[in-house]
Amino acid sequence: MHALEQKILTEGIVLSDQVLKVDAFLNHQIDPVLMQQIGKEFAARFKDAGITKIITIEASGIAPAVMAGLELGVPVIFARKYQSLTLKDDLYRSKVFSFTKQTESTIAISNKHLSASDKALVIDDFLANGQAALGLIDLIHQANAEVVGVGIVIEKSFQSGRDILLEKGYRVESLARVQSLSHGTVEFVRD
Amino acid sequence: MHALEQKILTEGIVLSDQVLKVDAFLNHQIDPVLMQQIGKEFAARFKDAGITKIITIEASGIAPAVMAGLELGVPVIFARKYQSLTLKDDLYRSKVFSFTKQTESTIAISNKHLSASDKALVIDDFLANGQAALGLIDLIHQANAEVVGVGIVIEKSFQSGRDILLEKGYRVESLARVQSLSHGTVEFVRD
Repeated sequence: MHALEQKILTEGIVLSDQVLKVDAFLNHQIDPVLMQQIGKEFAARFKDAGITKIITIEASGIAPAVMAGLELGVPVIFARKYQSLTLKDDLYRSKVFSFTKQTESTIAISNKHLSASDKALVIDDFLANGQAALGLIDLIHQANAEVVGVGIVIEKSFQSGRDILLEKGYRVESLARVQSLSHGTVEFVRD
Repeated sequence: MHALEQKILTEGIVLSDQVLKVDAFLNHQIDPVLMQQIGKEFAARFKDAGITKIITIEASGIAPAVMAGLELGVPVIFARKYQSLTLKDDLYRSKVFSFTKQTESTIAISNKHLSASDKALVIDDFLANGQAALGLIDLIHQANAEVVGVGIVIEKSFQSGRDILLEKGYRVESLARVQSLSHGTVEFVRD
């Protein structure tokens, strides 16, 4: 997605070979116009998939997911990280290991809003090792709902997440695919 | 705002005299069409205020704030709760006491995205005792930026937050004002 790649090149900050910081438009400050474009792009790619729910995770997944939900005309559920949880319902829970933080956390969604008849699209801001996406997929499976695919704003293609998801048979649509962050420069995957 | 009040009446759950649960469309599952209507309503009420930034707090403030930012054509910054913070910049920090959870937490924003020339609108999902709004206002003041007003999706008018903010001279625009949750019923403030 050209507008997103341009934004990454002009406002993203390469912190290391592994870490791209996009606090200027996605992870802390949010560019609502870009989020709308992202929502439209996800909707275009998944428009024939019969999606009934979008599942994301707090906090940075919410803006792109809500814009996609607006375009597709479906509700969005954001999984809660357990420490911030005030939900009192019965919950589906899954454990997610963060390689960045070297910590395991629990994510959860209420069983009220997702059922066996749902066709769910997972949306997240980043795809690195795929652990967050797999956690969300696990929650969807606990509801016996169908996983239609995974929509990612920025994929770090040099990490294993995409391959892990593809091997398990999931469709992955990433709007920007970062090939390398070496030498302080962002390089994108070119087909 | 009629559509919001109707949604509260049909899908909100009164958990006690003090607690209204709106996990069906705002705090866990999100209704993107309603969020767009909310964004348009905030934009209409503040359209002549010269707003340059919207400031909210993760996670439930993000959806209404981003929709308002889209309508007003301005960026949105969501303050991070400290435990989820991976920001490495210099930060503005403020402490927020939660009466509900009886805990104090630290919220923060990077000093990169807010400056003395900004006119900031605070947006949040709920207004109860006003502590979260005051924390966000404190962050804005640390940047020497101007606070143009506070936009709230659901105000619990039987708690002190609105009066505290008005006494300090802030403009408060709440899209739904809940007068009472007694006897398991939602009653709205009527002028």
